[in-house]
Amino acid sequence: MKIGFLGLGAMGHAMARRLLEAGHELAVWNRTQARADDLVARGARRAASPADAAGGAEIVLSMLFDDAAVEAAVFGPEGVASALAPGAIHACCGTISLDQARRLRDAHAERGQGYASATVLGRPPAAEAGTLFVVAAGAESVVARLAPVLEVLGQRVFLAGEDPAQANLVKLSLNFLIMSTIEQMAEVFALNEKAGIDPKTVFEIMTGSFYNAPVHRNYGKMMVERVYDDPGASVRLALKDTEMVLAAGHDFQVPLPHAALARDRCLAAMAAGDAERDFVVLTENVRRDAGLAR
Amino acid sequence: MKIGFLGLGAMGHAMARRLLEAGHELAVWNRTQARADDLVARGARRAASPADAAGGAEIVLSMLFDDAAVEAAVFGPEGVASALAPGAIHACCGTISLDQARRLRDAHAERGQGYASATVLGRPPAAEAGTLFVVAAGAESVVARLAPVLEVLGQRVFLAGEDPAQANLVKLSLNFLIMSTIEQMAEVFALNEKAGIDPKTVFEIMTGSFYNAPVHRNYGKMMVERVYDDPGASVRLALKDTEMVLAAGHDFQVPLPHAALARDRCLAAMAAGDAERDFVVLTENVRRDAGLAR
Amino acid sequence: MKIGFLGLGAMGHAMARRLLEAGHELAVWNRTQARADDLVARGARRAASPADAAGGAEIVLSMLFDDAAVEAAVFGPEGVASALAPGAIHACCGTISLDQARRLRDAHAERGQGYASATVLGRPPAAEAGTLFVVAAGAESVVARLAPVLEVLGQRVFLAGEDPAQANLVKLSLNFLIMSTIEQMAEVFALNEKAGIDPKTVFEIMTGSFYNAPVHRNYGKMMVERVYDDPGASVRLALKDTEMVLAAGHDFQVPLPHAALARDRCLAAMAAGDAERDFVVLTENVRRDAGLAR
Amino acid sequence: MKIGFLGLGAMGHAMARRLLEAGHELAVWNRTQARADDLVARGARRAASPADAAGGAEIVLSMLFDDAAVEAAVFGPEGVASALAPGAIHACCGTISLDQARRLRDAHAERGQGYASATVLGRPPAAEAGTLFVVAAGAESVVARLAPVLEVLGQRVFLAGEDPAQANLVKLSLNFLIMSTIEQMAEVFALNEKAGIDPKTVFEIMTGSFYNAPVHRNYGKMMVERVYDDPGASVRLALKDTEMVLAAGHDFQVPLPHAALARDRCLAAMAAGDAERDFVVLTENVRRDAGLAR
Repeated sequence: MKIGFLGLGAMGHAMARRLLEAGHELAVWNRTQARADDLVARGARRAASPADAAGGAEIVLSMLFDDAAVEAAVFGPEGVASALAPGAIHACCGTISLDQARRLRDAHAERGQGYASATVLGRPPAAEAGTLFVVAAGAESVVARLAPVLEVLGQRVFLAGEDPAQANLVKLSLNFLIMSTIEQMAEVFALNEKAGIDPKTVFEIMTGSFYNAPVHRNYGKMMVERVYDDPGASVRLALKDTEMVLAAGHDFQVPLPHAALARDRCLAAMAAGDAERDFVVLTENVRRDAGLAR
Repeated sequence: MKIGFLGLGAMGHAMARRLLEAGHELAVWNRTQARADDLVARGARRAASPADAAGGAEIVLSMLFDDAAVEAAVFGPEGVASALAPGAIHACCGTISLDQARRLRDAHAERGQGYASATVLGRPPAAEAGTLFVVAAGAESVVARLAPVLEVLGQRVFLAGEDPAQANLVKLSLNFLIMSTIEQMAEVFALNEKAGIDPKTVFEIMTGSFYNAPVHRNYGKMMVERVYDDPGASVRLALKDTEMVLAAGHDFQVPLPHAALARDRCLAAMAAGDAERDFVVLTENVRRDAGLAR
Repeated sequence: MKIGFLGLGAMGHAMARRLLEAGHELAVWNRTQARADDLVARGARRAASPADAAGGAEIVLSMLFDDAAVEAAVFGPEGVASALAPGAIHACCGTISLDQARRLRDAHAERGQGYASATVLGRPPAAEAGTLFVVAAGAESVVARLAPVLEVLGQRVFLAGEDPAQANLVKLSLNFLIMSTIEQMAEVFALNEKAGIDPKTVFEIMTGSFYNAPVHRNYGKMMVERVYDDPGASVRLALKDTEMVLAAGHDFQVPLPHAALARDRCLAAMAAGDAERDFVVLTENVRRDAGLAR
Repeated sequence: MKIGFLGLGAMGHAMARRLLEAGHELAVWNRTQARADDLVARGARRAASPADAAGGAEIVLSMLFDDAAVEAAVFGPEGVASALAPGAIHACCGTISLDQARRLRDAHAERGQGYASATVLGRPPAAEAGTLFVVAAGAESVVARLAPVLEVLGQRVFLAGEDPAQANLVKLSLNFLIMSTIEQMAEVFALNEKAGIDPKTVFEIMTGSFYNAPVHRNYGKMMVERVYDDPGASVRLALKDTEMVLAAGHDFQVPLPHAALARDRCLAAMAAGDAERDFVVLTENVRRDAGLAR
């Protein structure tokens, strides 16, 4: 299939490579063009702009940093919206706000183009191996046409609903679960540490019994090792996601006390100078409140 | 080994049966004597009192309801403390407070008896199959002597430390993680439900991806099915556990905002008349706050 | 002085009347023109647009509903910005966001116009009597020129700083104190009511001893009388203010747990269908959590 | 009237002196006897024990530190309970738990003695001047007989109900309002400080407008001056009171999120080594979370 691919960060690059290897015909674009070099060496076409990537594509996938990056790539000069053929589809894989997803849905519809949100769970190695989890939402006919591509990317494709923003809400919800799980583990680790029990022991017991999901294992490990300086995702990014969850809570009138606390932890970490460290550093605010020296 | 076993509720009964089947010599006691009938039929001796069960035993295991039940069985008339031989061991498997564990530790030590906490994770079927998880703590020599018995009960025995109360703290911490996980899932389910996404879909995505621990699967399932009337553990019990976690936070000077919220959810459920329902009913307070009709 | 006055809601109308009575020369504008009739009868000039009110004015005061209304009146077609003379001053008295205040500050400065925020505390009768409290901020020279006008409006004029947004932050902070005080009183009233003590008795004791500020007396009275249907300010408005406080917390990296809770109470009230009732109705969510029938 | 007075701390001493000056016949007792010297010089009788103070008294007033001190003075050897004449009254003025108040009520009733709670608001100078506020509760006949004495102590006597514990609940509620008010002001001061506005300016605006109750003025002043080392009440004491409020919330099934947060702030202050400092030091945890250096 002819695919335009926008955004070659760690995740986007791995996803694009996976699609290439599955035999798809790719036109790739990234703001910093050099990120495309090895993909071009493997047969991708280097696109000069989002519009260039979208022209002639049946499907455009975007894996961009945030709402602003999506806005620029789609609606800016040389953007996707102006170049995508009627009937062709844009699927946004990044973590964007519900408002942005609604705007994409409506703007593409006005132009006779299809739009779906196709958010992904997992990290670059999973992307390269095609073992991500995909949470998609959009009109049935659009999602059906995307399916073969999404199945290359993910070991499993979940359908959240027919409104694209629903996939974004689910994705934000899952990110929020990480934040909340970090808080709950941080409280437990601090409490046990002050009682003379090594958090590593508690972590062993948790992950050796009923608290053994990746969300426990991956983040819990970083927490007990207190490794914050090779950020998977920064506090700044975690705060942005949390604000989007809270904004969804506002829109749908749902109080979310765990999310509110996560926001406060992020702000405390920002105020402590940790904006760019891995967001498991939130655990340090819990420790400091407990009198555990930083 | 000669074992006295106190407390034949659903868990205690299954544990006692497992020990019998493993060839141990049991004297069993329960406040309601009839609970012992089938164990007696399988070769256990019916003890007339905790003291009767403890006399001649190398090890006494207790699986009683709460601090008060332990207090009565150990220090009351015809209690364990007065009858257990010097050098013999009492291991308390129930979920008790740290204060109660300390009291047992000290009181047994004064009498030359050994004491350990040996808390268990899992439900009656796991107890019968010997696939519980055991979290034990106590003096090394005491725990070493208990080990063969604990290994019959659990698929894995974790050691929390040398102070018995440490096992109780870990057990309370793990129970608290359940409470906090229920809250986080309740917030996510309510938010998604109001956005038109069936919580069952979210549950599928969670447990099909990175949120697939038993703590997610078991409680999440009850939550999306909204089944509250065959209580594994009641709101009243969950509140009691949460208060014990908060008391530990008090003792060790550790703020625990997730635990404080769990407490408030329990109180709201009690106030709504749900004290005896399964504690996943806490999700209903989250739903009501979100305007989802009960 | 020649004053343009924009926004003739209950507050704006009373303020404009006060200025007229103090002998100032007013040009008044309101979206719904009829609100100006009696002021015109008292000598004000009816302006056809914000620009019309601003043309020739030394000072423009605006008392508009929200950021959007200010945006339209200042930067929209026939807006203040295009008509205000260089050296003349716009003072915004309404409760707007810090971002909006910064935008006004910068945009007026670009045009050689002065800008200050001059927020007001108090209700229409106080506005008419000139007994408001004014919290102003802006460049010293600008505020100095405003002073004679502000002193007509308020019994006291406070200076928050030289950046106009500082007055808005103080005003939002004071509004937040109301929200937080309502929550604290609601918790106390619910607790005492369940203990058989009439909240009115507690209110008497509070306001008869050390908790006798207007914030206690005015809102506490409405709470114990449970009168919600003659709204001074609606839940929707309270939520908007709270979101602006939280946004300021975000910008300045300050966790604000009381504000986060206030937000959740507002959302619960909105979800319960109370968006347009007086915001002391938040107390009902506290009561419901306590099992007190609505 | 013949009055026994127990507990001559700063408050008790001032109250006893006031009663003496009003012409009552006092027998005074304190654990540290020297505290009574000047009262004896003014005509009081030095009692050797609580029982000695209670023997022959029509009324015994106690102003003791906590539940434990009351328990010892009333039910311990040489305690009030054994010596107070049938028909005589014990009124406890200290801040005790509801459980302790109920125990006093029942135990005195069994002995044909009267009991009321007569809690007081205010500080030693007010006690000496007789300008305290008194919140009393108890059987009508008991309170009626106490009235002339309470009116000497307080400028105003409020009646909370016929169950003595109701006065204690109101008193604890009022103390909780202080805690919650400190939190709300701490959030506002931190937010404004980070925006470049001196908290003293905000304090001026608050107390110069609608937030001018003693609870704002007294505690706010200490907060903006950051004076913590001449403790009126310590963090430890504030935590004790907060735990009693939360215990009441537990008993009456009322979620109290503001109280839960106050508890966490106290724990953080304890963990930071501030247990014995004035409890307005709680503001420092808020400041630290906001990145304001301590």
